[in-house]
Amino acid sequence: MPYYVSGQIHESDQLIALWPEDAIAKRGIDLRLLHEVTGIDRAGKKVSLHDLDSGQVFEQEYEKLLIATGARAVRPDLPGIGLPGIFPLKEFQDGINLKAFIEKGKPRSGVIIGGGYIGVETAESFSRVGLDVTVVEALPRIMTIMDEDMAQLVADEMIQHGVRILAGRKVVGFEGEGQVRKVLLDDGGSLDADVVLLSIGVLPESRIAGDAGLELGERKAIKVDPYLRTTDPDIFAAGDCSTAFHRILKQDVFIPLGLTANRQGRMCGENIVAGLTGAGMRPFPGIIGTAVTKVFDLEIGRAGIGALEIERYKLGGISRVKIKAKNLPGYYPGATDIWVKLYYEDTSQVIVGGQIIGRDGSVLRIDTLAAAITARMRLEDLYSLDMAYAPPIAPVWDPLLIAARMGMK
Amino acid sequence: MPYYVSGQIHESDQLIALWPEDAIAKRGIDLRLLHEVTGIDRAGKKVSLHDLDSGQVFEQEYEKLLIATGARAVRPDLPGIGLPGIFPLKEFQDGINLKAFIEKGKPRSGVIIGGGYIGVETAESFSRVGLDVTVVEALPRIMTIMDEDMAQLVADEMIQHGVRILAGRKVVGFEGEGQVRKVLLDDGGSLDADVVLLSIGVLPESRIAGDAGLELGERKAIKVDPYLRTTDPDIFAAGDCSTAFHRILKQDVFIPLGLTANRQGRMCGENIVAGLTGAGMRPFPGIIGTAVTKVFDLEIGRAGIGALEIERYKLGGISRVKIKAKNLPGYYPGATDIWVKLYYEDTSQVIVGGQIIGRDGSVLRIDTLAAAITARMRLEDLYSLDMAYAPPIAPVWDPLLIAARMGMK
Repeated sequence: MPYYVSGQIHESDQLIALWPEDAIAKRGIDLRLLHEVTGIDRAGKKVSLHDLDSGQVFEQEYEKLLIATGARAVRPDLPGIGLPGIFPLKEFQDGINLKAFIEKGKPRSGVIIGGGYIGVETAESFSRVGLDVTVVEALPRIMTIMDEDMAQLVADEMIQHGVRILAGRKVVGFEGEGQVRKVLLDDGGSLDADVVLLSIGVLPESRIAGDAGLELGERKAIKVDPYLRTTDPDIFAAGDCSTAFHRILKQDVFIPLGLTANRQGRMCGENIVAGLTGAGMRPFPGIIGTAVTKVFDLEIGRAGIGALEIERYKLGGISRVKIKAKNLPGYYPGATDIWVKLYYEDTSQVIVGGQIIGRDGSVLRIDTLAAAITARMRLEDLYSLDMAYAPPIAPVWDPLLIAARMGMK
Repeated sequence: MPYYVSGQIHESDQLIALWPEDAIAKRGIDLRLLHEVTGIDRAGKKVSLHDLDSGQVFEQEYEKLLIATGARAVRPDLPGIGLPGIFPLKEFQDGINLKAFIEKGKPRSGVIIGGGYIGVETAESFSRVGLDVTVVEALPRIMTIMDEDMAQLVADEMIQHGVRILAGRKVVGFEGEGQVRKVLLDDGGSLDADVVLLSIGVLPESRIAGDAGLELGERKAIKVDPYLRTTDPDIFAAGDCSTAFHRILKQDVFIPLGLTANRQGRMCGENIVAGLTGAGMRPFPGIIGTAVTKVFDLEIGRAGIGALEIERYKLGGISRVKIKAKNLPGYYPGATDIWVKLYYEDTSQVIVGGQIIGRDGSVLRIDTLAAAITARMRLEDLYSLDMAYAPPIAPVWDPLLIAARMGMK
């Protein structure tokens, strides 16, 4: 039975069932699986549909239209890219395919192209199933979403677990008989690779919107207003295909993440219904770029702005403070290191960003920082926070309080 | 070598050394160990000192005085209370004594009197060293700092680990030859007890302040103003002996906790110096009653106000919402239950309190709630928070977001 999962249609019974097809039909929804929308006629308020089964092409009228086409993994046009054993990891099915390939082919060496979230997470997975793993990153370092000093901690953790990192190196092609066996590098060298992961980012699936003349924003994501309408007020967009308003940067950005997509999807549905019934629409609250991941035993969190945004958006008047502390009282068994970095406005001392690296659940503190940033707390406000203390949970002076205090000096 | 530890003097080399005595002397501080202050002459600005070693009594002048006498464990005046094997657990030395007694005496049964933080935490410790444990609580239930439904989860966890809970039962005395062997109950029954913990709360050590005519507040804690001055502007008080301003209740309360004492101590020192040098003093930011503990595998957190404060301070116009969710995505291995309860003002929907129970570090979310409460976020503001999502760290819709959303309905 096909399932409707987070905006995508899958035919596998291994999938998590959210909405079985018959449940959708029961709710009076006309679900057209295997139908591709090939164009939008905004003046006529209809879309062209291509039935991929029958080959038939026809039109469908709409009153309000939602574009929720998501993003696609970037697939570089390199020699040998079509060889079996080279996988993206964007769709659910990608994961199933990759896992099946590894279980069947018993590869010994894995090369990961791209050292972002997906790359570092998969480096762990590859390593855990016994592969010899190399991460190749074209930029001078991995995890550029984090400050350089913080990303170095991530690299150290990976290296300690036997992962090789090749930064500042570009992949120029692939070789192999019948399947990939080698990754070719821009310095003339090569890497053994029985399996390759392509994790060099995603791009919004916005072609259909662009073709229809809708405005595109950062990285060609579909630009939406606070109510998630595109530049055509009858066409909404939500999720990884669209922009999201950044509350700190005060501009529309393309940061395709799970909570944003979920929240936009829900609000979009509510606003479309509100529009049809004449009720009031609600504005999307915006994001602050909160993100978190785990690589081996290291947890990595960030919220608001850091070195990346300061450079990319040419921001000034922002200072930072960094501390290293323990997640638990120093005397408590199992206390581990935690690093906290705060970014704050020089004049107001309002906190605008932060990064945390730690272990054992300690990075959940990034949410407290997200709340502080959203509430525009100053360093002193954060330092004044009545935080939890109990030896098995947190030290009497929480690392966030210590960081805020250090910044106040 | 005696050490100065959090306001107390100990003679044991097993202690955590914070400030060795000679380091204090090096800083020019005249540290008088084993000297008891027996009275304060506010008009003459001097204190009476009793040298416990020599028996000598003399006076010491002061310009500014700080009272940091802490709190003492309540010790009920019951028959047999003096029997060996009955311990409070307030001072560092209490813990050392209790541990030594258990290691030497090999008790089989332990009775804990009082089901608050110390009681439930020690129930776990007793249980882990193999004791047959009973908690006796005079009130109808344990952990009254939490709502009844939340406290029940704690009781269930303890019962599952073999701890017996006798609620609504008072202890009326102790029996034993040479050491405690029985705890006598108000219904005429008794419990075997080779070791007894007294954990029925603490009271502020405020006698000397009261004798000097300083105003006392809740539970006779020394009343302090925003600058931590008592009703005599030359006398400050800080820590477990004094009140603290509650930001939500907007009144002075007695909630003796570690961070409050640390923060008050630090601010008091700064304000005394500021007062002496003519610099500006800073107001204590207040508390919101954030507290957390762990009992066996269950973590228990609370912040702001709950059923206890609503009843005690006769508060109206406050609603609540409670949800049960998972700390991680439901499909992720090891996802565990988490309960979140929010209290909010009916009209404004401003969040004024919350309670969380969960496992595996998930209760660190209480700090995010503390930030939301302090920033006076409404349910919708919390729901709008850009929180962290990654399967090993948190689900796409964090339990806090789900709770806020449910409250908005």
